[in-house]
Amino acid sequence: MGFQKPPGTQDILPGNSELWQYVENTARDICRKFRFNEVRTPVFEATELFKRGVGETTDIVEKEMYTFEDRGKRSMTLRPEGTAGVVRAYVENKLYGEPDISKLYYIGPMFRYERAQAGRYRQFHQFGVEAIGSSDPALDAEVIALGYSFYRELGLKGVTVDLNSVGTPAVRAEFREKLLAFLMPMKDDLCDDCQSRMERNPLRVLDCKVDQDKFTNAPSILDSLDEESETHFARVRECLDETGIPYNLNSRLVRGLDYYTHTAFEYKCQGIGAIDTIGGGGRYNGLVAEIGGDDKPGVGLGLGLERTLLLLEDQRIRPDLGNVADVYIVALGDRAEKAIPALLQQIRMEGIAADRDYQGRKTKAQFKAAERSGARFTAVLGDDELDRGEISLRLTSDGLQLQSVKLAELGTTIRSYMTIDEKGNNNS
Amino acid sequence: MGFQKPPGTQDILPGNSELWQYVENTARDICRKFRFNEVRTPVFEATELFKRGVGETTDIVEKEMYTFEDRGKRSMTLRPEGTAGVVRAYVENKLYGEPDISKLYYIGPMFRYERAQAGRYRQFHQFGVEAIGSSDPALDAEVIALGYSFYRELGLKGVTVDLNSVGTPAVRAEFREKLLAFLMPMKDDLCDDCQSRMERNPLRVLDCKVDQDKFTNAPSILDSLDEESETHFARVRECLDETGIPYNLNSRLVRGLDYYTHTAFEYKCQGIGAIDTIGGGGRYNGLVAEIGGDDKPGVGLGLGLERTLLLLEDQRIRPDLGNVADVYIVALGDRAEKAIPALLQQIRMEGIAADRDYQGRKTKAQFKAAERSGARFTAVLGDDELDRGEISLRLTSDGLQLQSVKLAELGTTIRSYMTIDEKGNNNS
Repeated sequence: MGFQKPPGTQDILPGNSELWQYVENTARDICRKFRFNEVRTPVFEATELFKRGVGETTDIVEKEMYTFEDRGKRSMTLRPEGTAGVVRAYVENKLYGEPDISKLYYIGPMFRYERAQAGRYRQFHQFGVEAIGSSDPALDAEVIALGYSFYRELGLKGVTVDLNSVGTPAVRAEFREKLLAFLMPMKDDLCDDCQSRMERNPLRVLDCKVDQDKFTNAPSILDSLDEESETHFARVRECLDETGIPYNLNSRLVRGLDYYTHTAFEYKCQGIGAIDTIGGGGRYNGLVAEIGGDDKPGVGLGLGLERTLLLLEDQRIRPDLGNVADVYIVALGDRAEKAIPALLQQIRMEGIAADRDYQGRKTKAQFKAAERSGARFTAVLGDDELDRGEISLRLTSDGLQLQSVKLAELGTTIRSYMTIDEKGNNNS
Repeated sequence: MGFQKPPGTQDILPGNSELWQYVENTARDICRKFRFNEVRTPVFEATELFKRGVGETTDIVEKEMYTFEDRGKRSMTLRPEGTAGVVRAYVENKLYGEPDISKLYYIGPMFRYERAQAGRYRQFHQFGVEAIGSSDPALDAEVIALGYSFYRELGLKGVTVDLNSVGTPAVRAEFREKLLAFLMPMKDDLCDDCQSRMERNPLRVLDCKVDQDKFTNAPSILDSLDEESETHFARVRECLDETGIPYNLNSRLVRGLDYYTHTAFEYKCQGIGAIDTIGGGGRYNGLVAEIGGDDKPGVGLGLGLERTLLLLEDQRIRPDLGNVADVYIVALGDRAEKAIPALLQQIRMEGIAADRDYQGRKTKAQFKAAERSGARFTAVLGDDELDRGEISLRLTSDGLQLQSVKLAELGTTIRSYMTIDEKGNNNS
C-alpha cells in the first residue's frame, strides 16, 4: 500500500525548492535593507491565543483551525496566521523593555482547514513583518513599501496597493451604525455571507463580491474619519507619494479584526484569472494590549508565498538559480573508481560542488549522467592517469579536453576556470 | 493576563535567530557541495506513516507523538522525525523513476512530547539528508563525511564518529538469538528499560547506560557479519580512511528500527557535561518497501540543530554575522524628518541596510540610537542641508564628518566607503 500526503498539503521537490529558497532569500534581503530581524515562534500555540488574537467569531477560529489536545490535556492549535504568535513572543520576552521599537519578520508554515482548491493549501506559507512600538505613520508607509519592494525585487509586474483607513475604534463604532442603517433595509436581498457578516463585522459586508452592485451609495468610512485619523492617514499617503509607491484608495477595504486601527492595505495582482489579493496588512494599535501586554501600537503585513510563486510562474519569471554541480567525476576503471571518494571530499572542502555516479554505471552512462547533472566540467579519471597522479578536465558540453591536472590541484584549477567565466570569457 | 509559549517550545529572537540562519546556511552550502537538493514535506502526516516508518513499538510512536484528528476525522501526527515523510514523498512522487539516485536534504521542525529538560525541546529542529536508490558503500561514507564536514565547517572541535554495522536482516536475526541467550540468565538483574527492550529490540539493550558493566562479555555483532555485510562494511571503512574521516568502531551502536541494515553511525561531542550524541544515521535498505515503494536501498542522517547551537555556545564560537545597519539617518528638523522616508527607500533599493528613529526622539537620543544600531555610518540631515539638497555623512563611532553628499548620491557614496573597507582600509 502507498501513503499519501495529507489533503491540502504539498511536497516541495528539487527543481521547485530552489525557487522557494530564492523567494525566501529575497524576503530576507529586503528585511536586511529595511532593518527587520527574524523571529521564530512555535508552530503551535495555546488555542486561546488565537481566539483572542484572531477573534472568536472569525471564520478562521470557528471553522478552520487545526486544534488538538496535547498529552498534558492543553488545547493547542497549529498557527493559522503569524501575527498572534509574534505579538505573544514580543510580550512574553518583554521586548517592549528595549529602547528601540521591535521590527520583526517571520517566514514559515501556517495551517487552515480550508476547502481544498487550486492555489489554496491547508499548510501554506507566509512571509510577514511586525513593527511594534511606534504609531508614526511613516512606519505604516515603510511596511507598505517593504512588501511592494519585495514583489518588485522578484520582478513581478502589475502589483498594486489598495489603501484605506479604518480610523480609531471610536470612528469605526460610529461608522458601523451609519452602515447598518444603510444595510438594514436591504438585508433580505443580501447573500448569506453578507447577512452573517452584518451581525459579526458589518464593515466586511462592503467587501462582498456577490452584492457589490448594491453598495454603490453606501457610506464611506473615509467620510467619517475624525481629526486624529485624518492626520495619520494624510501622512501615510504623503510618505507613499514621496517614496514613489503607487496606491489606490479603496474605502471598502477592511481587515477582518476588531483591533485593526487606521491603515489597512492589500497587494493585488492580475493573475491568469481574476485580480487577486496576494497579501495585506495594517495597523493594529489594540492588539498588544489584547494579548496581555502594555498598550503598544503595531503595524504589520503578511504575504502568501504560494501565491507569489504562482505569479512568478504566470509571468514566466524564471531566475537563474544556478543549482547545478560544478564538476562531475567519471571513473574509467576499478582502481580509479576506488580513488573517487577521497578526491570528491578534497574538492568539496575547497568549495566545489561535485557529483559522481553511485550505480556502477558503464563509462557512456556516466558521461550521460554528467550531462544531466548540469556540471560545466567533467573530470575523467582512468587507471593510467591515476598512476601518474593526474586527472583529465573536460567541458561537459562537447567533451573538449581542457587540460590534464594534478589530482591535488583539481579544485583550484576548476576554480580558476570558474573565475574566468565570471569575468565574461565563456568557456562552454 | 499573559500568554505563554507551549511548554517545551522556544521563541528564537533577534540576536539569536541570526545564529540559526548561519547554521542553516552552512548546512545548505554543505549540501550544495555534496549535491544534495532540498525537499520540503508537510509538518504533519497520516499517523499510520509513522507507525510504519518509525515502528509501532518504539517510544516515539508509543509515547511521544503529537497525534490529532483533523476536521475530516483522519488521524494526523506532527512529524517526530524527518525520514518517513521524505521516503513517503520519494514514493508518492515516483522519484524512483528518475535516472539518477535521489540525494535529498531537509531542514525543519520536528515534534516529540518528551519530558521537558535542558536542551530537550518538544518542538526541535533537524537537518537531515536521505540518499535513496544506491547500495554503494561509498555513499554511506559520503553521508557520514557530509555530517562530519558540516560540524567542521561550523568550527566545532572534538566531534567524533561512532561506527557499526548491523548487517543484513538475516545477520541481525541470528545475532538476536545469540544475544538473548547471553542476556536471559541475567534478565532479573537488568533495569526496567533493558527488560522491556529485551522483548522489543534486544540489540538496543547493549546501549543501556545503567547496565553497561554487565555486558563486557556480550557477543559482538561484528563477529556475526556474513560475507555480504563484511564486504560492504569493509568498503565503508576504507572510504572513510581514504577520505580522512576519523571514526571509532562501536559494536554496541544500534539504530532503533528494524529496517536499518549495514551501516549505523553517530556523531558525538564532549559538551559542558558528558559526551553526547549530536546526530546520527544509517543505511535503511528495507524502509522504502515498508512505506509502499519499490525495494530501493537508502542511507541518511539526521542532526539536531538545538544541540549544534549549544555546542557553538559551549565552544564560544561566535561567527561575525554582520547583521547590522549600514547607515542610520538622523533628522535635525521637522522638514528634514519629513524628507527621510523617500531618502530611506531610495538607498534601500540601492542595497543599503538603513534605519532611522520612529519615536520622535530628540537629536541626542537619535545619535544614541544610531550607535545601538551598529551602523558604521550616520547620515545627518538638517533643514538647511535639505535646502541645498545635501546630507552630512559621518562615522557613527566618533562623529567624524566624512563628507557632505548630494542626497541623490548617498547610496553610492556609502557603497564606495564600504568597498574601501572590504579592501582592508578600515575607516572606523
